[in-house]
This record gives sequence, structure tokens and C-alpha cells, in this order.
Amino acid sequence: MNDARSLRQLLDKDLIQDVIHAYCLHFDRAEVEEVLALFTPDAVVDYGPDVPTMTGRDALATMVRRGLEEFFAATSHHVSNVTIELDGPDAARSLCHLYAWHSYRDGRPESELWGQYRHEFRRMPEGWKISRLVLSAAGARNFHRDRMHPIGRRTPGVR
Amino acid sequence: MNDARSLRQLLDKDLIQDVIHAYCLHFDRAEVEEVLALFTPDAVVDYGPDVPTMTGRDALATMVRRGLEEFFAATSHHVSNVTIELDGPDAARSLCHLYAWHSYRDGRPESELWGQYRHEFRRMPEGWKISRLVLSAAGARNFHRDRMHPIGRRTPGVR
Amino acid sequence: MNDARSLRQLLDKDLIQDVIHAYCLHFDRAEVEEVLALFTPDAVVDYGPDVPTMTGRDALATMVRRGLEEFFAATSHHVSNVTIELDGPDAARSLCHLYAWHSYRDGRPESELWGQYRHEFRRMPEGWKISRLVLSAAGARNFHRDRMHPIGRRTPGVR
Repeated sequence: MNDARSLRQLLDKDLIQDVIHAYCLHFDRAEVEEVLALFTPDAVVDYGPDVPTMTGRDALATMVRRGLEEFFAATSHHVSNVTIELDGPDAARSLCHLYAWHSYRDGRPESELWGQYRHEFRRMPEGWKISRLVLSAAGARNFHRDRMHPIGRRTPGVR
Repeated sequence: MNDARSLRQLLDKDLIQDVIHAYCLHFDRAEVEEVLALFTPDAVVDYGPDVPTMTGRDALATMVRRGLEEFFAATSHHVSNVTIELDGPDAARSLCHLYAWHSYRDGRPESELWGQYRHEFRRMPEGWKISRLVLSAAGARNFHRDRMHPIGRRTPGVR
Repeated sequence: MNDARSLRQLLDKDLIQDVIHAYCLHFDRAEVEEVLALFTPDAVVDYGPDVPTMTGRDALATMVRRGLEEFFAATSHHVSNVTIELDGPDAARSLCHLYAWHSYRDGRPESELWGQYRHEFRRMPEGWKISRLVLSAAGARNFHRDRMHPIGRRTPGVR
């Protein structure tokens, strides 16, 4: 094994994990510009089948701005189980669990989501950026969307 | 300090953490074979005093298969606070917090568990495997087991 | 980039993360002395506007002992999104998300908190210690304090 390369990979994983954390933090603080700056210009974001998949930072901007400034009153995005796979020196994929809590400006009941984020990353001159984000859900309580991408459970539950 | 050894330890911790994450992911996806493949052949698994402690992958297989294919409709296992201690080059122990959400095929209410996993790991030719897993709980809501191993609180609550 | 320095930084981040985890574990186990030993003698701890900010381990001891031995029946502190920034070789700051569950000795309803910890750390002869801890909250359910420090959401929700 090459020690310098292994060290470089651990450092990249650490930086990539910080990007995932920054997304949650800026989202929860309703910092629209800071959220958008985490994505590549051509990023693809898929929050589920009830929302059009967005391509590019401009499409994402409209939705994120509306969500953070008009829809949510407060959110808390807790990511864990972060597993990162490097695809060569300048690309990476990751999967993590998401436990998210939301309250809404229109007074509907607070919601919880037990889900997962699937990320792809690309190294840009200014650092690692999210080039793709797909949200899926194992379950939810009072969530504002009825349909979500499944997490891929082999034996779907009958409910 | 020996830099090469320190690097090796960080890499091992990273690999071990990925095994813990893989357990959660495959469990939540109801991927029975993939869950079982994470354990050593002689692994000991103790899910609590209401379930017989299982020794060996075959004993575990029966329970995991029944749970994933017949009992749970959906689950989401969020691990955090992962603290890993290496015991020489080929063994390790870890403790983490677990927040788990479950829904059931028989329609009983969804449950939540606030617990901990205590793991032991052994390095096998094909990588790190779980040789021991003990689940304990600080609390639960609607959980399908009445008694759980305690997390070891010094001053037990009176309830 | 200096490889030896990068490795040292990763090792320090790993040690600091373990201190955050140890705080949660010892708190959940009601191990008062072990909680206190994680702080510098002059540590500042701010649990919110409804509690006086504590300075020094002695002030902290009174509150932690009362909380763990008389107030809480059980707790579970799940930290995630841990992002650590080193300030030179012997100081560090970090931010993480906290999802906490509590049950109480006086029988009031169990509570949940969706919050954040802001930590500062200092390297002491015996290892990294917490020199400052500030708790903030995005939201809560049945929590035992009415007012909490906000997480700094730019567009506060109207509720």
C-alpha cells in the first residue's frame, strides 16, 4: 500500500464529509447562497417523485429559496452512517442516513423523516462540490410529501 | 509516535466504521445474506434478554431472515457517536449510539429505540468482520421487546 | 502539503471526536466525575438562556450532579454532523448536531431535542479537553426548558 495515497484519501473523505455537514448546517440556518455554493453548476438534485428533478444551480436556487424562506419555519438535518467511496482522485460517491425534523410556517404538524442521501461529488478548483443528490426514505411522520423514493428494501413491507 | 502505524490505525478505524454502516444499510434494505456476511462464522449476537443469545452465523441467519422478511415492514438504523478502540493489529472493539425507527408488517404502531451497540471485530482474510454485537437501550417507544439490556446508567431512574 | 502535519491533524480530530462522544456516553450513564473530567478547569458551559452560564468545573459539577442524579431518569445523546476546525496545534473548535431523548424522574412526558453543540477544545498534558460548550436548539418536544439559544436561522419561522 502507498502511504501517501492512503493519507490523501483519508483527507479527501474528511473534506467530503464536511461538505455533507455544511449542506445540513446551511439548510437548517436557511442560508440559501451558502447551500447553493456547495453544488457544482450542473448539479442534479432529486428530492423525490413529487418534485421535478432539478438540473443546475439556478433551478435548485428557486426551490431552495422558496423552501427556506417561505415554507419551513425550522429544520434539523442529522446525517450519520456516512460511507464514502472515492472514484479516482477527483470524484466520489457517498451514502448516508438522514434523520430530519421540520416545522412549517403554515402551522401544520411538525414532521420527521427517516431517510438516506445518495451523493456524488466532484473536485473543483475551489474544493469538493456536490454534483448529484438523491433523497430516499424508509419512513416518515407528517412529512410534507406523500411519495418518496424507496431506499431499496428487498422485501417491501405490506402496509 | 510511528507515523506509518498511526496511519494504518486510522485506515482500520475507517474500514471498521464502514462495517457498522453496512450492517445498518443491509438490515434496512432487508438484504439477509449481506447482513450475515458481515459477521465471523462464530459471531455472538445478543439483542437483549427477551431473545436467546445467538452463536454462529447459522443461528443468526434464522432470526435475521424472519425479522427482515416476516416481521418488519421497514426500518431505519441511525448510528452515531462511533468510538473505536483497536486491540492490536487484528482485533477491535467499538461502542456507538443507535437511533432506530421501525414499522411492522402486522400493523402495530411504529416504534423508536434510543440505544447503543457494543461491537467486537476481528480481521479476517477478506476484511474486518463483527465477532460480537450486544444491543442495549436507554429508552424506547412502542418497541417490540419489553426488556432490553441497560446501557449501564449509574443512577437508574425511578419510573 | 506536509504529510506528517496532515496525519497529525487527522489524529487530533479523531481524538477530539472521541471526547464529544465520551461526554454523551458518560452523561447518558450518569457518570458525574467522568463527565466533569472531560472539561478544562476553567471551562465555560452555556446550556441556554434559562440557566446561568457556568464557569469552572466546580460550578458545572453542581448542575451536572443534580441533573444526572435527581432530574433525569434516562437520557440518550446522539451527536452527528461533527465538523472540527483546528486552531493551531493545541486548540480546536467544533460544531455538531445533537438529537437527544430524555425521560424524567418526576414522571413528566419524555422529551426530544433537535439541537447543536458548539465546542471549543484545548490540549492539556493529559489530552484534549472541552474549554467551552454552548447548546442551541432548532426545535424541541416536551423539553424541560422553554427558551433555548437559537441555531442562527437567517429567516426565523413565524409560529
